[in-house]
Amino acid sequence: MGALDEGHFNGELENGVKLINLEVCDEEEVEATAAIEGAVKVLLQGLGEDVNREGLKKTPSRVAKALREGTKGYRQKAKDIVQSALFPEAGLDSGVGYAGGTGGLVIVRDIDLFSYCESCLLPFQVKCHVGYIPSGQRVVGLSKLSRVAEVFARRLQEPRRLAEEICSALDSGIKPAGVAVVLQCWHIQFPEADRNCFTQIHHPSEMNMQGWSKVSVRFGLGLFANEGSEAWGDFLALLKFRGFNVEKNHTKYPTSHHWCPFRSLDAPSCNGHASTHIPLNGRTPSRTGPSQPAMVAAVAMILNSLGEDPSRKEFVSTPRHFVQWLTKFRRPNMDMKLNGFDFDQFKPRLQKNMNDVDNSILDQAKGAEPVERSRLQSIAHFHGWKLQVQERLSRQIMETVAMIFGEDVMVVVEASHTCMVSRGIEKVGTSTATIATMGRFSTDPTAKAMFLQTVSDCTASGG
Amino acid sequence: MGALDEGHFNGELENGVKLINLEVCDEEEVEATAAIEGAVKVLLQGLGEDVNREGLKKTPSRVAKALREGTKGYRQKAKDIVQSALFPEAGLDSGVGYAGGTGGLVIVRDIDLFSYCESCLLPFQVKCHVGYIPSGQRVVGLSKLSRVAEVFARRLQEPRRLAEEICSALDSGIKPAGVAVVLQCWHIQFPEADRNCFTQIHHPSEMNMQGWSKVSVRFGLGLFANEGSEAWGDFLALLKFRGFNVEKNHTKYPTSHHWCPFRSLDAPSCNGHASTHIPLNGRTPSRTGPSQPAMVAAVAMILNSLGEDPSRKEFVSTPRHFVQWLTKFRRPNMDMKLNGFDFDQFKPRLQKNMNDVDNSILDQAKGAEPVERSRLQSIAHFHGWKLQVQERLSRQIMETVAMIFGEDVMVVVEASHTCMVSRGIEKVGTSTATIATMGRFSTDPTAKAMFLQTVSDCTASGG
Repeated sequence: MGALDEGHFNGELENGVKLINLEVCDEEEVEATAAIEGAVKVLLQGLGEDVNREGLKKTPSRVAKALREGTKGYRQKAKDIVQSALFPEAGLDSGVGYAGGTGGLVIVRDIDLFSYCESCLLPFQVKCHVGYIPSGQRVVGLSKLSRVAEVFARRLQEPRRLAEEICSALDSGIKPAGVAVVLQCWHIQFPEADRNCFTQIHHPSEMNMQGWSKVSVRFGLGLFANEGSEAWGDFLALLKFRGFNVEKNHTKYPTSHHWCPFRSLDAPSCNGHASTHIPLNGRTPSRTGPSQPAMVAAVAMILNSLGEDPSRKEFVSTPRHFVQWLTKFRRPNMDMKLNGFDFDQFKPRLQKNMNDVDNSILDQAKGAEPVERSRLQSIAHFHGWKLQVQERLSRQIMETVAMIFGEDVMVVVEASHTCMVSRGIEKVGTSTATIATMGRFSTDPTAKAMFLQTVSDCTASGG
Repeated sequence: MGALDEGHFNGELENGVKLINLEVCDEEEVEATAAIEGAVKVLLQGLGEDVNREGLKKTPSRVAKALREGTKGYRQKAKDIVQSALFPEAGLDSGVGYAGGTGGLVIVRDIDLFSYCESCLLPFQVKCHVGYIPSGQRVVGLSKLSRVAEVFARRLQEPRRLAEEICSALDSGIKPAGVAVVLQCWHIQFPEADRNCFTQIHHPSEMNMQGWSKVSVRFGLGLFANEGSEAWGDFLALLKFRGFNVEKNHTKYPTSHHWCPFRSLDAPSCNGHASTHIPLNGRTPSRTGPSQPAMVAAVAMILNSLGEDPSRKEFVSTPRHFVQWLTKFRRPNMDMKLNGFDFDQFKPRLQKNMNDVDNSILDQAKGAEPVERSRLQSIAHFHGWKLQVQERLSRQIMETVAMIFGEDVMVVVEASHTCMVSRGIEKVGTSTATIATMGRFSTDPTAKAMFLQTVSDCTASGG
């Protein structure tokens, strides 16, 4: 059967996406899942991890499930979704005008989506707004606009292509007078990437998306083909009702550049200088584990099991990028320093300027003896860049801080877990927090309350 | 098998909830769905609708699917979810303190849930915050806190009981030092209900929840049993980090009162006077359709098909409330007025005070000849209180306004569709908008843009 919906078929011709048979039988599902699990084991071993330790035993199967779930759009037909939900709806009875099934703009705003970046395989977050202008006395069930958007989000993507594919699928499915898509996308930052290479606007502070990169894209067909058209004017005005100002937020990123921070590591940077290139570390992180080329091959195998062609040009560097990201979880220098070689540099020093004291997620209140923010950050990063659980992370940061600075320590870790979203649990906007206390903070409720109040005040003032 | 998780089993003993066999086979599923579909047809016919018209043909199956999906918590075991995700996690290595698997508070905030009100069968929206303090060097996978909350949300509920059931299930599953739940719940208002009968705080303006009632509840066990405890202090402080101030938002509603607006119709109102009682209309809305007692019986049958016992005391008035809600979609007085009997009262009148002109979701800009807000509201309500699609609603409002006031009309309808959430598509926070234009607004882009700008300004200023 001609297995793909038109939207994706368009994408395929442009981007060389491999055709996928939608009739995935159980056997193929089991096979693909097993292949991904095997590849994840290779990656974990490459990081020097024991794949049989309690916390990791189920990780391969969890990752496989999340990836299959997050890319199930390859096995869905957008066209079917739309065509089963088209229904006749009258236009105006009389007079000149636009409404109902003929000419009245219809939009759905604030659709929360989740996708995987085709350049690095990390998940990214999407807020999607879709609009169309019905024609031919025919409208589509409103929930179908989100469902079609979701089909294309659940593939390996890039913001511009995602917008185009959603638009094309709705255009061919509904045959409207016009259709338009606006996307706001957030991608995890890579610490060493050139952060100035593309638009980087922080998320509204309440979502605490510091360290995420953002781009906004829009795409339209029919009456929306021209960005200055009346139809776009109406759409953007309705987005403004909900506080989203496209003029302010829509900074086009140059087509010659990629939004993924890993791509900016490969390419010459915006200002013409070559950006810092993070080389793949030649040595094997663990003496007995698989080599990095083996890890890269494992990621290519994952792409293949998701139904993509790893040789497609967009994917050439993807396995390497993903392994780069993973190997960040091993930082030999930090490791050595914290395992007894260089503890001295972490010894407390009286801070000249109280304003420099850390007011970020990691906080430590020691009254008269403030410690340097950068030292605390190093400790937090050291424990953060591991395969972790948040409860352990809080404890380990606290224990390290206590070892160096003394016993009265309190740590609050604030986080949002992409795993909770990407694994189909789909609670975008959910956040977690953990508290760890030692010494005075564990025995004196007033000290603890004061610490929490201080963090809260700093958060409120945008610190 | 002893089919229920402990949390719900506790609830069962307290509330007389019927035991449900979790091993629902396909046959039972088909049977329950068919029974609900049959009952929905009775309801539609009772409203005088033609169940074979295009827009309604799939409605019974959609409603059945939504209700089964929305109550699938009856067929899930919270205990299994928790127990498969408990894992060992060390506490502090040395020293006095609380962290990791022993004593460090862990919270998950802003879990968006959806539930059905046991008193009227309408959906209500929930923002849920869960916290627990691990003990015995054991923690639970963080995503499981949302999943357990979801199991209990997907049953017919009431906020206080929902909080208690989530807490009890986590308590018996994790055996922590303490567990606590804070819920913010929004319920659709019933226009004639006594709106002052319980806490009614508007949702943050960006979510546009005017006309919804809100209550906040909290419940805790173990270290959270006492609301003034240190554990609660920590939890509330962490909620404050995300802008949720419990002290400000937590208004206890008296246990003698119910949050559901329909219950306040039954009970004497807060100020001691009997509230306006909406009687069931004795006459059959349609001459050929089922009677109202038949409709009430149909709703009781739906409760039964969802696995509940319609004779349980919480459900005694539920079928009647739901039919009351549905029959709002037939308003014979309005009907007569708008079908030719009393058009005169809608004739335009010059408004003395420009500030009275409607700046709500229905807007009409006629330059020098403003019309009364109440007239426009009546028209919007008349067309709104029908089984509708938003595109048609915009058109019908516009056509009626044009018929009475003249041909230059523009209508913007803003909405959020609970159907998109309750049918498992799960896009909380999504909103829709439709535009309809006639006369000058359809030919003069500047007039249209000015209208949109005016609405936008009114929205921004809280109008």
